[in-house]
Amino acid sequence: MVWTQRCVAVVGSAVCTEEIAKCAYDVGYELARRKAIIICGGRGGVMAAAAHGARDGGGTSVGILPGRDRNDAAPHLSVALPTGLGDARNAVIACAADAVIAIGGGFGTLSEVALALKKEKPVVGLLFSFREIAGVYQAKTPQEAVDIALRSIVRSTL
Amino acid sequence: MVWTQRCVAVVGSAVCTEEIAKCAYDVGYELARRKAIIICGGRGGVMAAAAHGARDGGGTSVGILPGRDRNDAAPHLSVALPTGLGDARNAVIACAADAVIAIGGGFGTLSEVALALKKEKPVVGLLFSFREIAGVYQAKTPQEAVDIALRSIVRSTL
Amino acid sequence: MVWTQRCVAVVGSAVCTEEIAKCAYDVGYELARRKAIIICGGRGGVMAAAAHGARDGGGTSVGILPGRDRNDAAPHLSVALPTGLGDARNAVIACAADAVIAIGGGFGTLSEVALALKKEKPVVGLLFSFREIAGVYQAKTPQEAVDIALRSIVRSTL
Amino acid sequence: MVWTQRCVAVVGSAVCTEEIAKCAYDVGYELARRKAIIICGGRGGVMAAAAHGARDGGGTSVGILPGRDRNDAAPHLSVALPTGLGDARNAVIACAADAVIAIGGGFGTLSEVALALKKEKPVVGLLFSFREIAGVYQAKTPQEAVDIALRSIVRSTL
Repeated sequence: MVWTQRCVAVVGSAVCTEEIAKCAYDVGYELARRKAIIICGGRGGVMAAAAHGARDGGGTSVGILPGRDRNDAAPHLSVALPTGLGDARNAVIACAADAVIAIGGGFGTLSEVALALKKEKPVVGLLFSFREIAGVYQAKTPQEAVDIALRSIVRSTL
Repeated sequence: MVWTQRCVAVVGSAVCTEEIAKCAYDVGYELARRKAIIICGGRGGVMAAAAHGARDGGGTSVGILPGRDRNDAAPHLSVALPTGLGDARNAVIACAADAVIAIGGGFGTLSEVALALKKEKPVVGLLFSFREIAGVYQAKTPQEAVDIALRSIVRSTL
Repeated sequence: MVWTQRCVAVVGSAVCTEEIAKCAYDVGYELARRKAIIICGGRGGVMAAAAHGARDGGGTSVGILPGRDRNDAAPHLSVALPTGLGDARNAVIACAADAVIAIGGGFGTLSEVALALKKEKPVVGLLFSFREIAGVYQAKTPQEAVDIALRSIVRSTL
Repeated sequence: MVWTQRCVAVVGSAVCTEEIAKCAYDVGYELARRKAIIICGGRGGVMAAAAHGARDGGGTSVGILPGRDRNDAAPHLSVALPTGLGDARNAVIACAADAVIAIGGGFGTLSEVALALKKEKPVVGLLFSFREIAGVYQAKTPQEAVDIALRSIVRSTL
C-alpha cells in the first residue's frame, strides 16, 4: 500500500522561550489544520507546545518519549508512547517522520536534524539554533515552515 | 500529569489463520469501543486485523514498525511509525503498552510477552501459542481478553 | 569478508543461585578456552559469572548494558558498553550473537531466547527455566552446552 | 565498581579520502598504544581505518554495526557487534564512549557528535566537517586529538 498520510516531526528543546513555544504551537496548529500527523519527543517546551497546537487545530499528535513513564508525557498529546530507548528514540523520530521542522533546539535537536538529513528527508528550521548546517531550509514564519515541509514531502515522493 | 488514556498492545504473528485473524479483529474492535488506544507491530496478520477492528470500532491504532518504510504498514492503522529498529521495536511495544493481549503468536510475540511480564504488565493470551508461560491470563473470547486486560490496568495503577 | 570469529551470548538473571553462577562461570571459561567471544548483558549474576569465567579462561567478554553508566558493569568484563537502550538491549544481544546459552533465567532471559529463536540462531539451555519452549537444546553440563553451541554455529554457516 | 578503562569512539564516514583514512588509522593506533579501547561503527572508511590502526597498535576495537550481518564488519576489528538497530546504533556509540573523536564526517557523524555533546562528553574534531558546532575541540594532528580526548576524560571524572 502507498501510505498517503503525512507525518511531520516537530523537534526542539524541552525548555524554551515563550517566542519559541509560540512558534511551535503555531506549527502544530497549522500542521493539524492541513491534516498532517504531528510527531514529537513527547516532553515539555517545543514538544508540548506543538502537541497543544495540534490539539487546538483538531489534529493528531504522537509523542515518542525517551523514558518508560507515560506520566512524563505532555498533556495535549493524542498518543504518548514511552519507549525506554533513551536518546536512541531520536533516531526513531527521524525514521518515523516524512519531514522535520526544527524550532530553536539544542544538541538533541541537532541529532534529530542530522539523522533526518542522513535519510535525505526535508528539514526546515525556524529560529533554528544551528543555521550553519547546510541542507536545512530556513523559514521565517510557522506557516512558511509548514508550507515548505509539506511541499517538500510531495516533491520527494514524486 | 497522570495520563488517563489506556494503551493496549495486540501482539501476534504477521501470518496467521482466519480464526486467529477474526479474534484479533474482535479484540481491536472491542478495545476501540471501550476507548483504549491499540498499539501493534504495524504489519500483517494479527497486527493488520487488530488495526482493522480498531478502525471499524471508531478507535485509534498505532503501528510500530520494525523497518524504515511506511508503505509496509497495515492499511487500517491510524498512525504508522516506521522505527528502523528491527526486532528492538518489540521492546518499544512492551514499553509503550499498559497491557498486552497475545493472540496465537510465534517467537517474536513470545519476546513481547516476556518483556511485558518483566515489566510486570498484565498479559492476556487468546489462543496463545505458549500457554505454559506462567503469569499469562488465558482468555476464552476476545471480549474476555479485553475485559481482563482493561481491568488489570485499573488494578495495577490503584 | 567472512567473519570467522564466533560470538556466543551467555544469558541469565542478574541475581542467581550459586549453582547457576558456577554453571555460568564454567560456560564462560570453556567458551574462552575454545576462542569464542563471550557476549552478555554486563550486569550481575549469570552475566558477571560468565565474564569472570571468560577472564580466567584467557578470553574476551563484552557486556552490553541496558543503562548509561559503565560503573554498573560486572568487574571481569573485557569491554563494557553502556547502551542506554533499556530492555531493547536484549534485541542487540540476540542480534550480535551467533548462538545463545541460557542458564536459569527470568523473563528478560526468555525475551533474549525468543529473539534468538526468531532469528533461527542456535539456543542451548542449561538448568534453563523455560524448558517447555520448543527449539532450545537442553544441555546437562557447561561443557556440553558449549559443545552444542559451537557445533551448531558451524552447522548453520555450512 | 569504578570502571577504569577508557573507551573512545572514533566516528566518521564509511567512505573517505586517503588523508582522512590516514588520520583515522593514526588515531586508532595512538589510542591503542595508550591503552584505550576503540569504539566505532564497524563499517568502512574512517571506521575501518581506526580499527586497522588499533590492531597495529596492539589494542582492542569494537565495531557497533547498524545492520544484522557480521560479514559487513571491517576486517581488523577485535569484536564486531551487529545490532540490527539501524541509525539508532549511533546513540549506542555516543552512550558507550567516554569521549568522541570525529574525523571528516557526514550527517551520521554529526548525529553522533550531537548526542555525545548532549551527554556532556568531550568531543574532538580532526579535519571535522562541521567546525562551526560549538563545544567541539579542534585538533591539528591525530596525536593531539588523542591527547585532548584522553585528558578530557580524566578531567570530566574528577
